[in-house]
Amino acid sequence: MIRFFEKDPYAPIEYSYEVSGILYSHKSKFQDIMVFENPYFGRILVLDGIVQLTEKDEFFYHEMLTHVVMHAHPEPRIIMVIGGGDGGTVREVLKHKTVKKVYFVEIDEEVINVSKKYFPSVSCEIDNPIVEIHTIDGAEFAKRSNLDIDIVIVDSTDIVGFATSLFTEEFFTSIKNCLNENGLFVTHSESIHFHKNITIEVQNKLKSVFPVVDLYAVPIATYGGNWWSFSIGSKGLNPRELQRKYQIKTRFYSDEIHKVSFLTPHFYKRLIDQELDW
Amino acid sequence: MIRFFEKDPYAPIEYSYEVSGILYSHKSKFQDIMVFENPYFGRILVLDGIVQLTEKDEFFYHEMLTHVVMHAHPEPRIIMVIGGGDGGTVREVLKHKTVKKVYFVEIDEEVINVSKKYFPSVSCEIDNPIVEIHTIDGAEFAKRSNLDIDIVIVDSTDIVGFATSLFTEEFFTSIKNCLNENGLFVTHSESIHFHKNITIEVQNKLKSVFPVVDLYAVPIATYGGNWWSFSIGSKGLNPRELQRKYQIKTRFYSDEIHKVSFLTPHFYKRLIDQELDW
Repeated sequence: MIRFFEKDPYAPIEYSYEVSGILYSHKSKFQDIMVFENPYFGRILVLDGIVQLTEKDEFFYHEMLTHVVMHAHPEPRIIMVIGGGDGGTVREVLKHKTVKKVYFVEIDEEVINVSKKYFPSVSCEIDNPIVEIHTIDGAEFAKRSNLDIDIVIVDSTDIVGFATSLFTEEFFTSIKNCLNENGLFVTHSESIHFHKNITIEVQNKLKSVFPVVDLYAVPIATYGGNWWSFSIGSKGLNPRELQRKYQIKTRFYSDEIHKVSFLTPHFYKRLIDQELDW
Repeated sequence: MIRFFEKDPYAPIEYSYEVSGILYSHKSKFQDIMVFENPYFGRILVLDGIVQLTEKDEFFYHEMLTHVVMHAHPEPRIIMVIGGGDGGTVREVLKHKTVKKVYFVEIDEEVINVSKKYFPSVSCEIDNPIVEIHTIDGAEFAKRSNLDIDIVIVDSTDIVGFATSLFTEEFFTSIKNCLNENGLFVTHSESIHFHKNITIEVQNKLKSVFPVVDLYAVPIATYGGNWWSFSIGSKGLNPRELQRKYQIKTRFYSDEIHKVSFLTPHFYKRLIDQELDW
């Protein structure tokens, strides 16, 4: 049997997957890109040796990254998606009929092209006319922009290598400057099981920039440490409260899931105060 | 580097761990028992090729298996623990000062002895005088017993091999007959990510025996599919409600965690109705 061994230098468990076929393998200007087929998960996208998405379970991540902030906003019209070249986040954003424009900022054009070819169910909305693609570094784009954005979603790889530019205070400040008065920002912030110090660091950096900061989490089987966290920076709105009725079609996210995914107050305090001893 | 590759025939991702030393490896009358050392997780107990516990993260499973039902009961005095030869569940049970007696029923005496030797922080309460050890099959013990039990906790291996006897309607009926009027029963019921059909099957079998059945879940990094489910059968009490103040010392479980760990109503309905399409 041929197997793919994930090379995540930060995860204490190594995951491996059966490979029933390799569909693509090429080094782009930025990273190694591979697509392989697995009997259980279907097609799997790998960047620099780390699984980014599988056909079978990508919806957990994409729905939970997107719909919490989208429902916490009364009328999200202008959205910026940074990263997420596969298009899964753009697909979820476009389920909201209030959306008039999406700035889709992906540094690596090859990821977009690979997803269009090999993941049609994920990339299906990339060519929607309201999506404006910018293949540049998200940190640069945010710095140079003077836009009137309702929601910024960062859909990045792990917080190592070139993605670290999307987790600095400077970047968070640029994002805040792009956002209008009810603006919301969300990014993943690693696994609470394996990398809670990174989660805490992201939360603290966000707090130095945004008046409202929050944290929610969801179990994702294909990301190291699974229990995956998402950090929100808000200019005022409370992200725990749905501002609009939940009426889109989703496979996991719902108004109920929205509410129970946020960390409970005491547990959140213990996390931030570094009282969780694992 | 020496690595341990977990052999879980039912998990579509294979987990592997660095091995910095093998402390024990022996085939008991029932199963292969191995203890090895890992730089991140500390000592790891493996039964028949599958990780049962790690020193670092065992508390997630043992606390969540034990304290939900223990807090849902007004005065848990007599407890039966089936399986869990490592003693982690017994340790958690004994945090409740109401407890007067624990029937500890583990089929494989060698697991108890290995845990006493290699996992002192887990097995520390096994020799407590109120713990009565029975090294026989839990299904047989429950069938023959006419006991007045408040809470039965099944802490079994995966639902394959000899552990399947702990997941039959016949067994659940024996358990119900051991329980007194406010009795509660809990068992793990596999991963909602990878084995939700088993979770559904356990729920449905419990419903044919108990008037109140419920389900909660918690992310556990070292169990395949992580998002680990726990099924409750109750003779009347609602397990979502704490009957006693939370005042024991725990590392993860709390009264807040108790409440948010149960599946939300709509999500639960979709699970049982097989509308979750993964």
